[in-house]
Amino acid sequence: MACRVELLSIGNELLLGNTVNTNASWIATRVTKLGGAVTRITTVGDNLKDISGVITQVLKRKPDFLITTGGIGPTFDDMTLNAVAKALHVSVRVDHDALEMIRKHYAARFPGRDIKITKARLKMARLPLIGKPVPNPKGTAPGVVMRKGRTTIVCLPGVPREAKAIFNTSLAKMIRASAQGMEFFEKWIDVKGIMESTLSPFIDKVMRKYPGVYVKSHPRGIERGIPHIQLHFSTTALRKKLAKRKLKNAVEDFLSLLPERSEVSTRLLR
Amino acid sequence: MACRVELLSIGNELLLGNTVNTNASWIATRVTKLGGAVTRITTVGDNLKDISGVITQVLKRKPDFLITTGGIGPTFDDMTLNAVAKALHVSVRVDHDALEMIRKHYAARFPGRDIKITKARLKMARLPLIGKPVPNPKGTAPGVVMRKGRTTIVCLPGVPREAKAIFNTSLAKMIRASAQGMEFFEKWIDVKGIMESTLSPFIDKVMRKYPGVYVKSHPRGIERGIPHIQLHFSTTALRKKLAKRKLKNAVEDFLSLLPERSEVSTRLLR
Repeated sequence: MACRVELLSIGNELLLGNTVNTNASWIATRVTKLGGAVTRITTVGDNLKDISGVITQVLKRKPDFLITTGGIGPTFDDMTLNAVAKALHVSVRVDHDALEMIRKHYAARFPGRDIKITKARLKMARLPLIGKPVPNPKGTAPGVVMRKGRTTIVCLPGVPREAKAIFNTSLAKMIRASAQGMEFFEKWIDVKGIMESTLSPFIDKVMRKYPGVYVKSHPRGIERGIPHIQLHFSTTALRKKLAKRKLKNAVEDFLSLLPERSEVSTRLLR
Repeated sequence: MACRVELLSIGNELLLGNTVNTNASWIATRVTKLGGAVTRITTVGDNLKDISGVITQVLKRKPDFLITTGGIGPTFDDMTLNAVAKALHVSVRVDHDALEMIRKHYAARFPGRDIKITKARLKMARLPLIGKPVPNPKGTAPGVVMRKGRTTIVCLPGVPREAKAIFNTSLAKMIRASAQGMEFFEKWIDVKGIMESTLSPFIDKVMRKYPGVYVKSHPRGIERGIPHIQLHFSTTALRKKLAKRKLKNAVEDFLSLLPERSEVSTRLLR
């Protein structure tokens, strides 16, 4: 059983369309490479009821991880930690380790200046009772980790460089461990001169022959009447050598099925 | 009451992180500008149960629109229309208008060639019983529109240029009509030299003074120790003149609250 991960992206800017959700795709790529599988991504606005409602729903599906991004900063609409607390039926309280991380951050950034712990700054240290802070190497608000049933909940900031830094320093190893040696393998091929609807039965055939190999077609447009499709072959498996051979054979079988016509060209990308 | 819109993005490539969900941000931007409000975005893989499960949940929230992207093409893993049918408890059947659109598309693209309606191509004409096809000006698979209760469900292709074309030709006017004259207004300002945690109480103050105006801070990084924040002021309202004045006053009030220090600079962006 793969390590299942759900993502929850929080922020009105995502719903207004002002921000493209690159956090979700970055985290999904990293989780995949670590041997895990992202099973769902939900985006909601800065709304306590919506956020806590989604968390309650996610926990019912019992993923191994729920990773949230956004809503842990100092402004009024940063309400992720309150929403987690609400969903878990626990209170929030100032965590002294979190406060220490915040103090240290200001002291390092403004040496010699006395940065007061205002209400807005104290907010970033208010964690759900069962939450533990993890250091943010690139910003003020610490990440927060807690456990509910089989699910580890991890709250990351919305600022991409901060989310990435905490993911890499604190979260990657937890996901790797949970994946228990599962690894992701992939190959991309480029096909020009054949329509997706013509490729479709060949994809079916290869997937029936190689269980566990997933083939996805990505139409990339039509140039001067020539359709361009990229095909992604992937599998997640424990045994590297076997998986790689299986993928290689699947790609070769697939290519052998294509009609030999002058306008058809194929290229193995990586 | 604003026109509420939910988005459902479908495709394993989104969960693997291979594709950034630019469809969602593009549609969200368009919906916002048309006077509607995107309230949630859900992303699931090519999985019948997951897709239909989300649709069932969305319908319980009774949005005005549910816009899906992806999963209406010719391959085995294109299962959005079956999932909609499952969620609505209706059957799927070949729709003759949809089939005609598909035939016309091939005839226009390959004049003089006899493109057979294979099983894979016929698949794109199999719509839920209550679904109506809408023309796809940039590709083969027609969009599909149907109604359940107060919710209009619209299924768009995952290929961005096709999704955009159908949105613009068939969907935009429906959303505009549903928004009943509501319009979105916004202003962006750039603030350098003040931390987000320092700005936070000023944001609170302005939002209390101007109900309906929403202020969101976007930290853009720190250059040579100087924090850079962009602030987004927005409101959705029926009366253009009033809304614009309110936004203008809110921005001016906000700027007047900022400390006058040599390192602080502000700039109205647009």
